Amino acid sequence: MGTQRLKVVLGRDDSYDIRVGEGLFDRLGAHLREVTEAKKAVIVTDSNVAPHYLGQVRSALAQEGFEPFDLTVAAGEASKGLAVAAELWDALALLGIGRDGLLVALGGGVIGDLAGFVASTYMRGIDFVQLPTSLLAMVDSSVGGKTALNLDGGKNLVGTFKQPAYVTADLKALGTLPAEEWGNGFAEIAKSAFVDGGEFLSWLDGHADALAAQDGGAVQQAVVRSLAFKARIVASDEKEKGVRECLNYGHTFGHALEAVSGYRIPHGRAVAEGMRFAARLAVEAARAPAALADAQDALLDRLGLGPVTEPFAADDLYGLMLSDKKVRNGGLRFVLLASPGAWEAVAVDPDLVKIYLILWEQARMGKRQEEL
Amino acid sequence: MGTQRLKVVLGRDDSYDIRVGEGLFDRLGAHLREVTEAKKAVIVTDSNVAPHYLGQVRSALAQEGFEPFDLTVAAGEASKGLAVAAELWDALALLGIGRDGLLVALGGGVIGDLAGFVASTYMRGIDFVQLPTSLLAMVDSSVGGKTALNLDGGKNLVGTFKQPAYVTADLKALGTLPAEEWGNGFAEIAKSAFVDGGEFLSWLDGHADALAAQDGGAVQQAVVRSLAFKARIVASDEKEKGVRECLNYGHTFGHALEAVSGYRIPHGRAVAEGMRFAARLAVEAARAPAALADAQDALLDRLGLGPVTEPFAADDLYGLMLSDKKVRNGGLRFVLLASPGAWEAVAVDPDLVKIYLILWEQARMGKRQEEL
Repeated sequence: MGTQRLKVVLGRDDSYDIRVGEGLFDRLGAHLREVTEAKKAVIVTDSNVAPHYLGQVRSALAQEGFEPFDLTVAAGEASKGLAVAAELWDALALLGIGRDGLLVALGGGVIGDLAGFVASTYMRGIDFVQLPTSLLAMVDSSVGGKTALNLDGGKNLVGTFKQPAYVTADLKALGTLPAEEWGNGFAEIAKSAFVDGGEFLSWLDGHADALAAQDGGAVQQAVVRSLAFKARIVASDEKEKGVRECLNYGHTFGHALEAVSGYRIPHGRAVAEGMRFAARLAVEAARAPAALADAQDALLDRLGLGPVTEPFAADDLYGLMLSDKKVRNGGLRFVLLASPGAWEAVAVDPDLVKIYLILWEQARMGKRQEEL
Repeated sequence: MGTQRLKVVLGRDDSYDIRVGEGLFDRLGAHLREVTEAKKAVIVTDSNVAPHYLGQVRSALAQEGFEPFDLTVAAGEASKGLAVAAELWDALALLGIGRDGLLVALGGGVIGDLAGFVASTYMRGIDFVQLPTSLLAMVDSSVGGKTALNLDGGKNLVGTFKQPAYVTADLKALGTLPAEEWGNGFAEIAKSAFVDGGEFLSWLDGHADALAAQDGGAVQQAVVRSLAFKARIVASDEKEKGVRECLNYGHTFGHALEAVSGYRIPHGRAVAEGMRFAARLAVEAARAPAALADAQDALLDRLGLGPVTEPFAADDLYGLMLSDKKVRNGGLRFVLLASPGAWEAVAVDPDLVKIYLILWEQARMGKRQEEL
């Protein structure tokens, strides 16, 4: 399969390209020359990614006359904070990067969020591009312009909306992706397919096993379909004031579950469990058929995203949901599907949420009892 | 003179009001209800301003059903950094402020820049309003949406463009303005008048003495005229990609002078000196008449903004100019006036700049020699 191109159209004069394909890093310099006149390009990456791709990206930039620099941070979520951001801002100043400089985010979601935030705030904003190297970043966080840092007060507490000038997903980078990372991408692909419904969901249903087996063609299709869906949503609601909320399907419960587990449960597993929870809540709150929850369960299972069996306390989950960014004037908001593609964002009665959380906890306590 | 209203029009559906008058803080709650449905309103202020106006602003908010909170930081430039910003972000989270919350910046430029940056990044942006209490903030920084923090790597190194939802300049607040602060406002008023030219400059020429004497009517007129000018410029170039650059008149040299003095020279004196420098450079680089420099000198003198006589080194000033945000691909940019109102932003030959810097230094060395 050759390279595929997509476009995110934001306004009359504001859009950016996405390329998805194999070996795109080698042609990066020429592609970037289409979008920037920058001389200096600073690559922000992490200690896991740098040994594999930094040299290649540096060469590709130098070939087209960019003066490349690189700033490598420690791999892991701990780098997505103020201390590392401050080091990056100061380093950019020391390198003499002006408003006409370019920042290149090479890595997974942590690098994209961190570098995007730094680019959006350094000298009130310089251009940046996304080179996602994880499946999750390719299908989700690299497109849409959400940047973020974690603070003591909360994960992603601080951030901006800053669209990248260009995104390239080089599927070759998935060759070094750790096994446990694939599920994080699969969950967001499944989320997008259920929220979009129709052809995307049919395709995923027909290719879930190939995707789970990391078949190259299936992976590329999944990335392109997920990004096409996301680009459409972002284009109509750049700053999450309306329809973009649909991208939070599975995330109200999912974020709480991640947090209550101390982030032991990976994002993908947590989101998948959030989709399972939302589908059950939707039976009562959005008149969804119970069969939808079962069909969704089956598809998630095929993608290796089995249910979470650990019995976390309903009260703890409830408290964490209330502290989420998505809370508005105290209401608990969920994205619910009446059927695939037919979503609504609703404030669900907190008492009803509590009942479902208790049911969720009890089902797992029961399983535990059986195991003992 | 009654309250005067202005509007900053940014896009089809994006504009905000400015009110200028006496005693506006008392009516603040009702005015804010026109622009926000927020329940919680967090006032960010400093230890100098809080004793005078915090109680009044809190009451005005509470009267209209807002739930007011306040976060008071230490007065002074040192609060405009990451450490204080982090405290504010975490405090907002602890107070349970959601995306529908409102932040109220009550103070001078430091508070406006700091609170604006925090508001623009907390949960990827919440609404904020500006209640400037210094003349400088009233005529300049409260309108236009530039927010900033200082970092080790530079002053205002980090920031965003985030327009306030509303601005109110209550002239009563100037009653407690320290004497040395007036000059900072006068310099920006003079800058705006020379860049705008025409009627604004004629008015200032006719009222410079009344303004210098802090006459209430003259002050209100100066604030309204400065804001009307700035609103027009910001409306046509929100993110400083074109004409907004004219607002940097006097600032290329001015920023370098502030920095070389270790910020002993106040902003207003530095900008006024920057205007004097630019007017001399313009004789050669923009074919301006020498008489313009003399006329500008005379007006600045009447506003109490006499020339800086300390002989800072030309080399140091040159180095600082090169590290400024306004440098593009290594060029030294100046806003120069061929005549009042006829400005251009130009890359001036660095050798020519150096010659004028040496002349500037030598004139002051000569004066020193005479004094010794």
